[in-house]
Amino acid sequence: MNNNATGEAPAGAHLQVIPLGGMGEIGKNITAYRYEDEILLVDGGLAFPDATQPGIDLIIPRMDYLLQNAGLIRGWYLTHGHEDHIGGLPYLVARLPKIPIYGGALTLGLVREKFREFGIKDSDVDFREVEAGDRLNIGRHFQLDVFRMTHSIPDNTGYVLKTPVGQVVHTGDFKLDEEPGDGKLSDLARLKQAGDEGVLLLLSDSTNAERPGRTPSEAEIARNLEEVIAGCRGRVFLTTFASQVLRLQNILNIAHKLGRRVVIEGRSMLKYTQVAQELGFMEAPEPFLTSDQVAGLQDSQVLFLCTGSQGQPMSVLSRLAFGNHAKIALKRGDSVILSSNPIPGNEEAVNLVINHLYEIGTDVYYPPTYKVHASGHGSRDELAEVLNLVRPKYFLPWHGEPRHQINHARLAQTLPQPPQRTLIARNGDIVHLEENEFKVTGTVPAGAVYVDGLGVGDIGDDILMDRSAMSQDGIIVLTAVLHPTPHVEIVSRGFARANAELDGEIRRVALEAVTEGLRGKRRLEDVRDDMYGQVRRFVRKATGRNPVLIPLIVD
Amino acid sequence: MNNNATGEAPAGAHLQVIPLGGMGEIGKNITAYRYEDEILLVDGGLAFPDATQPGIDLIIPRMDYLLQNAGLIRGWYLTHGHEDHIGGLPYLVARLPKIPIYGGALTLGLVREKFREFGIKDSDVDFREVEAGDRLNIGRHFQLDVFRMTHSIPDNTGYVLKTPVGQVVHTGDFKLDEEPGDGKLSDLARLKQAGDEGVLLLLSDSTNAERPGRTPSEAEIARNLEEVIAGCRGRVFLTTFASQVLRLQNILNIAHKLGRRVVIEGRSMLKYTQVAQELGFMEAPEPFLTSDQVAGLQDSQVLFLCTGSQGQPMSVLSRLAFGNHAKIALKRGDSVILSSNPIPGNEEAVNLVINHLYEIGTDVYYPPTYKVHASGHGSRDELAEVLNLVRPKYFLPWHGEPRHQINHARLAQTLPQPPQRTLIARNGDIVHLEENEFKVTGTVPAGAVYVDGLGVGDIGDDILMDRSAMSQDGIIVLTAVLHPTPHVEIVSRGFARANAELDGEIRRVALEAVTEGLRGKRRLEDVRDDMYGQVRRFVRKATGRNPVLIPLIVD
Repeated sequence: MNNNATGEAPAGAHLQVIPLGGMGEIGKNITAYRYEDEILLVDGGLAFPDATQPGIDLIIPRMDYLLQNAGLIRGWYLTHGHEDHIGGLPYLVARLPKIPIYGGALTLGLVREKFREFGIKDSDVDFREVEAGDRLNIGRHFQLDVFRMTHSIPDNTGYVLKTPVGQVVHTGDFKLDEEPGDGKLSDLARLKQAGDEGVLLLLSDSTNAERPGRTPSEAEIARNLEEVIAGCRGRVFLTTFASQVLRLQNILNIAHKLGRRVVIEGRSMLKYTQVAQELGFMEAPEPFLTSDQVAGLQDSQVLFLCTGSQGQPMSVLSRLAFGNHAKIALKRGDSVILSSNPIPGNEEAVNLVINHLYEIGTDVYYPPTYKVHASGHGSRDELAEVLNLVRPKYFLPWHGEPRHQINHARLAQTLPQPPQRTLIARNGDIVHLEENEFKVTGTVPAGAVYVDGLGVGDIGDDILMDRSAMSQDGIIVLTAVLHPTPHVEIVSRGFARANAELDGEIRRVALEAVTEGLRGKRRLEDVRDDMYGQVRRFVRKATGRNPVLIPLIVD
Repeated sequence: MNNNATGEAPAGAHLQVIPLGGMGEIGKNITAYRYEDEILLVDGGLAFPDATQPGIDLIIPRMDYLLQNAGLIRGWYLTHGHEDHIGGLPYLVARLPKIPIYGGALTLGLVREKFREFGIKDSDVDFREVEAGDRLNIGRHFQLDVFRMTHSIPDNTGYVLKTPVGQVVHTGDFKLDEEPGDGKLSDLARLKQAGDEGVLLLLSDSTNAERPGRTPSEAEIARNLEEVIAGCRGRVFLTTFASQVLRLQNILNIAHKLGRRVVIEGRSMLKYTQVAQELGFMEAPEPFLTSDQVAGLQDSQVLFLCTGSQGQPMSVLSRLAFGNHAKIALKRGDSVILSSNPIPGNEEAVNLVINHLYEIGTDVYYPPTYKVHASGHGSRDELAEVLNLVRPKYFLPWHGEPRHQINHARLAQTLPQPPQRTLIARNGDIVHLEENEFKVTGTVPAGAVYVDGLGVGDIGDDILMDRSAMSQDGIIVLTAVLHPTPHVEIVSRGFARANAELDGEIRRVALEAVTEGLRGKRRLEDVRDDMYGQVRRFVRKATGRNPVLIPLIVD
């Protein structure tokens, strides 16, 4: 295995598939295809931090491999407009030469909006709008056929990639929705056609590889939402992922039918509805109103579409639930609908919001009691359907954690024409592909770059460990001042309630260590270490806690 | 409303029901009944911290009311042996006079074990063992009839409390398991008898008030476990809550039937199996072996029962998953069964363990794909069954968050004989009860006392906010030394990777503030505040971060 930023110089005619994000995880999707001296990139997403990454705003893929091979990149294809597929782009493109970026109208619209926020000029970017059915020739070796797949955002695609070694099919994110909001079905015929021609490798969405059956259609969710909303007598506040443009369209239609005017609340909800309308992916039956404008309407004539489906503290729904929204106050008789599930890690935050909504006296509707949300990713029967159509020789379960990848792989083995070989790959693996060869031959650097405030990449795991340690038992700063006579000052945060007696004892222990050290004419660093060690032991014994200790000596 | 530690002096003949924990939350259950100058306590549990309480080990109820009225407490009844009902006792009893403590044999056995760990002597405690069917006379006014209810631990009870104002029925934690492991069913006849006599107030378990239908029986879980284990060819590692004594018994029986010897791994698993065996609540068909002793057996002849169902970092299963168990290494062909669900807040930790198990190549079985776990709390049909038997005049949905309490209250309203009045109470409420009166008349202090290391109650919410703040953006300590010439030292943790340039700029900004302040002959506190303010602004602008800042001045 080699491990350098450039990867192996491909010797002999073969394709390298190099996932740089999204393989063995859900988030920050980016995949590089390399054939000889040409690279095609697909997607450039971000991920959100988990509980072990406190204070981090978002996570983007390491781009060492891209920087080292920047001159080889021929094109960048974007499957759809979700953050985990396009959210990393502002950070990535800024450090790369101008590369043609291909994507659907909505996808590019959302990327444009994002670039605008980051101050990236249109003239610095080479956008190329595509639509399902298009054939792209990228570089000398890649031919990419775009096909439609249904998902929880419109304008979502997969592609057939023709390469000198054979055909690769990548589903992109998908579910096989038989009644999508816009009536545009997944192009199963194109999958079958590729399968009939022969597919060397399939990359397919593993997110729901543990869920039996089929994921419910958006139409079913719309029917359930309509039933719930029709039963509400007061105001309705509905939250969902702002990127759920098809569902938002259904909700606008339902509101219109039930005689409710719609108010959009929250930055991302405003952004998505605006971009989607501008590009023709959403049509509001009636103009949106502001919260001031609906003040004169009856409660039963209003529906607020708002952010906050994940319990985010500054979102509209959280501010409503905790009673600190500047303009709107919830009241008994209002109904709140969460057309969403908590993403893993957000369960506690969402639960807190729901409890507060109950305490206010609102009626609250959410899954699983009310079936008002469905995943955007297909379940096992849909994954099997795709595998049966494509019948790939080799298989890479993609877009999933190991549990999802491995269950997807096992599912494939149960089908009539199972793949000859399946690899459970990870980010950074160099997957070597030719007609009769499918193996991991090495790795390139891959992993997480943390974005925190304005800093990109200046936070490492050591710093996250410090943060976690301080959150557990706090911190004590000991300042030993040597002149005119040695004495020790103590300051703490997050350690314990102000306790003069304990502080006094800690200072005494610290001062003893310092006095002893000075008497023994030890070096100041050694005196500092003595103070550190003895205070640490004392604190642990006295309190059972292990705060971060910062010993300072002022000479 | 009054709010003092003693509560109202009860004027006129009425009962006060005062939940001090477990009302409006799941955890740290404790309820006080007061009639004139007599108090009866029920349970004394602990709760576990959530994500907003970093570093806290556990949470116990505030006991101001108990301390103020210590002389009035006539008895303490324990419904069962779960931590959220007995885990607070070591902290609570240590500060109260010797009070008769009533409970079943297993419950008291587990409390005794706990007291032993805390160094509380048997002679300091007045234990009184009871069993289902017993009638206890406590003080002059309370008569308590114990009845059996099934739950996920044996020896679990509810009670009918006869008071001068009427009968109170408290279900305790329960599900209505029709095939419990020990064959001992819930005493529905006793509930019906109370209902026929007339029940003034019901307190009933709200945990699963949002779940339709019935909770599966332990027998069904046992059948599913047997099917899974029978299909395993290699070693089996099974984890569940250590207190699931009935399920553990079923697993021992299954292992015996399938020719597997059992190894117990993990402190709490050892403790529960030992206490349960000693007291006759568990019978191992064959003696347990150690991991060394089974080394000679074939893989198909071994089953490890181990701790770690919640992904706790130091548990046996986590150490196995991350490959740092001292004696045992997992391998391909092993099977791991999680006979448990993650408690809210533990989802990410459990997910990480599951992914590592997959990566090792073990087969992993867990809900919902495999139905190898059921809750210990009844679902809506069971809650309705209890309400229909008891037909109380008044109702307090208990053991639940607001969402559970309110859905339980709504369920009650749909039944043939709904309660005349239901209150959604909170911890600390004084619920006034007499024949024709049911209302909240005031509050007593209630809430959380944090236990962290050896400290009980020395951590407040301000300290938790400091901990959270430091975990977000870290901390910077600035030490301005004034002599011989002013200079500033900087130390940070969790803020950013070592960056001499940024450190230099921060020191420059700090020194400017100090020099300016000294030149203006400002007081040292003001100079310190100047340094704080200017550095804070500078750091926020330069990095987009808001670390905790500790400014020190050494004169």
